Amino acid sequence: MRVEVLAVGTELLLGQIVDTNSAWIGEQLATAGLDCLYQAKVGDNHGRLVQALRDALSRADAVIVCGGLGPTPDDLSREALAEVLGVTLELDDELAVRIESMFSARGRVMPMNNLRQAEVPAGAVVIEQRLGTAPGLICELAPRSPSDGRKVVYAVPGVPYEMKEMIERAVLPDLARRAGEPAVILSRTLRTWGMTESGLAETIAARVDAQTNPTIAFLASGIEGIKVRITAKAPTTDAARELVDAAAAQLLDIFGDVVFSANDEPMEAAVAHELTRLGLTLGVAESLTGGLVASRLVAVAGASEWFRGAVVAYDSSVKRSILGVDDGPVVSEAAAVQMARGVAAAVGSSVGLALTGVAGPDAAEGHAPGTVCIGWWLADTVGADDTADTAGAANARAALADGRSGAVTVSLPGDRERVRQYATITALDLLRRELRSS
Amino acid sequence: MRVEVLAVGTELLLGQIVDTNSAWIGEQLATAGLDCLYQAKVGDNHGRLVQALRDALSRADAVIVCGGLGPTPDDLSREALAEVLGVTLELDDELAVRIESMFSARGRVMPMNNLRQAEVPAGAVVIEQRLGTAPGLICELAPRSPSDGRKVVYAVPGVPYEMKEMIERAVLPDLARRAGEPAVILSRTLRTWGMTESGLAETIAARVDAQTNPTIAFLASGIEGIKVRITAKAPTTDAARELVDAAAAQLLDIFGDVVFSANDEPMEAAVAHELTRLGLTLGVAESLTGGLVASRLVAVAGASEWFRGAVVAYDSSVKRSILGVDDGPVVSEAAAVQMARGVAAAVGSSVGLALTGVAGPDAAEGHAPGTVCIGWWLADTVGADDTADTAGAANARAALADGRSGAVTVSLPGDRERVRQYATITALDLLRRELRSS
Repeated sequence: MRVEVLAVGTELLLGQIVDTNSAWIGEQLATAGLDCLYQAKVGDNHGRLVQALRDALSRADAVIVCGGLGPTPDDLSREALAEVLGVTLELDDELAVRIESMFSARGRVMPMNNLRQAEVPAGAVVIEQRLGTAPGLICELAPRSPSDGRKVVYAVPGVPYEMKEMIERAVLPDLARRAGEPAVILSRTLRTWGMTESGLAETIAARVDAQTNPTIAFLASGIEGIKVRITAKAPTTDAARELVDAAAAQLLDIFGDVVFSANDEPMEAAVAHELTRLGLTLGVAESLTGGLVASRLVAVAGASEWFRGAVVAYDSSVKRSILGVDDGPVVSEAAAVQMARGVAAAVGSSVGLALTGVAGPDAAEGHAPGTVCIGWWLADTVGADDTADTAGAANARAALADGRSGAVTVSLPGDRERVRQYATITALDLLRRELRSS
Repeated sequence: MRVEVLAVGTELLLGQIVDTNSAWIGEQLATAGLDCLYQAKVGDNHGRLVQALRDALSRADAVIVCGGLGPTPDDLSREALAEVLGVTLELDDELAVRIESMFSARGRVMPMNNLRQAEVPAGAVVIEQRLGTAPGLICELAPRSPSDGRKVVYAVPGVPYEMKEMIERAVLPDLARRAGEPAVILSRTLRTWGMTESGLAETIAARVDAQTNPTIAFLASGIEGIKVRITAKAPTTDAARELVDAAAAQLLDIFGDVVFSANDEPMEAAVAHELTRLGLTLGVAESLTGGLVASRLVAVAGASEWFRGAVVAYDSSVKRSILGVDDGPVVSEAAAVQMARGVAAAVGSSVGLALTGVAGPDAAEGHAPGTVCIGWWLADTVGADDTADTAGAANARAALADGRSGAVTVSLPGDRERVRQYATITALDLLRRELRSS
């Protein structure tokens, strides 16, 4: 079954907004085993929208129109759909009442414009809108000849979170039903770091080639590593879940430590899991990354349970005054370990992670841009952090003197921004691996 | 003149990569006064690529094909172009030598595949590739009748920085020449923060409506504010520059402090300019933003001239131990000022900026999510920082006790991530305004 995506909005053509919706929908369609061979963007113009819709329907069995369902006169998807279907727009009383009540519930009067959102092409099925005001639509076209299948157009809002909710709840199940697919398509994503796509693929080549259900796909995600997506089709959710989980268990066994999440979570969540499992708290000392490591960690909900704080020691004097780094080179493994230990003492945590290096564009201390030293420090006595927070830095440092530490030096490619991003995920992965083996 | 963009690559349809190229090209075309009414994505398939190219040429005067120029067998843009033009591919000896020498200059042997990149459709003009190996192409189509203009297809690489360089250097000037536009189209972007798009537009409504050269356009950029783009056309660069600069001077006069950059720079660059102008150094204390403010500042090249460091005091105990915040509520303007002053003392800077607040999802200290207090502190004596770096935090704090300070409390909308991003730019803008008036 062929599905096309048509993104509607002049702002997309002008580049004021990047169309991320089509990419997301394309990913969902691929996961569901549906072909998406063509995607297009068209502006808020009735004639061109109608033509683009007709072109798409001439090639595909189904078209998803994304956007143009708002309340203003330049939202034209409803009118264009009606013209292509050869029907009129009719006011749906139930929808009108629902939209009006959404406004009154917030103590506001509904602008008359919003009534346009209650108009639907005659015969269309309404997809209930649960997050905003614009309802979605499912419109079947009359077949050209009795032997033809019925083509279908879906209209969904352009607001990403409204669109995603509607696609998952209503559009994908409807498409699967029409495609005669088993009722349930389920996928699970493992996330890996430290191996190339071809390396991963080679490791399981025989398995991937032989396997048709579940299927295994690799998705490169830039510096965030490679995703391994397992997708199964089955008559029931339980059966699909069982297929997916069995394949996941096998892959986890084969890939081992390379997998940092078995459920599509980011690297910082993996670090959070390990810290929580061990009952440890973390402090971070950064230099070239300037707070990137800390800001990723704080993005994890519930970070206050295990994240104490960070020191961005950008100037060398700060490395010495707050973190207690000795005089001498600051781009070194010794300095990285001192920073890790120093920040643990300063913020009263049981674990310290530190980065020092050269982001570029210029070299520093004789090291080329991209040279980054990452150090870690772990207190011997878990629980020592409980006593450290009221003591001065010097006392705490003494109390935490007993611990294990380590450091690595890496050479990272790319420009200033890329080196900083790469250093961030490299350090998080190093800490994850260290904690896993603790 | 109508121009369409055709992005080529199966990975775009599968959603493995978001197509940002088309949006960028659309923005450039709009700036150049060229219509772009349709953009499409097609996969690495010869038949469909040929058909998509023919469809685009049936509607438009020019088509920009983006991607599919690589060395591997699934890079099909050259072959598709040759078929649409009705010509054969020919090996361009000069290109072959050039590509081979690029490899040998790096001490590598050229894979035979790369010779494919030296093949061009007969009669095509080659756009020199300055950053990678894939050359671009300009292909004119034979007119259908003597009265018709010649349609044209441009092929550029899909790698964004290679594509951008080629579009700016070769494609836009060629399009402008064909469109009969004045030789030079120049634009300049002012960046504003703190006013809505409609507010800005109303302020200069009469001017915008009356003006045809230069034109003025507003571009919403999410939490980064509203861009105001001034675009002029003229026979020479000097004449275009004069028009743009005169309009920019007028708008700067009207908008005043709302403009944070007169040359499309981000907010952190504006802060950097003010600090450099005043010869001051900065320290940042963060809580809910977890390092986002510091990481934006460190992204500015040359940040080491004025950025000392930051303390992410996520846990309350860190606010007290390193930053010297008194016992009591930490989501308060008093705490924000103490944090700002405390971090300046701790890192030895002449200016301190601090944020404390509630990112959500839960309330804290009786404050709703989105409540953020931002404090700043400025040393009375510029230069005091020179003596602070070797002294202990307590000494430095005493030496820097004399200063001015201030704080505000804001209520920010959105979820946890949005609140953190919004708080970051709000704090940077507050500091920028404070420094401007210093």
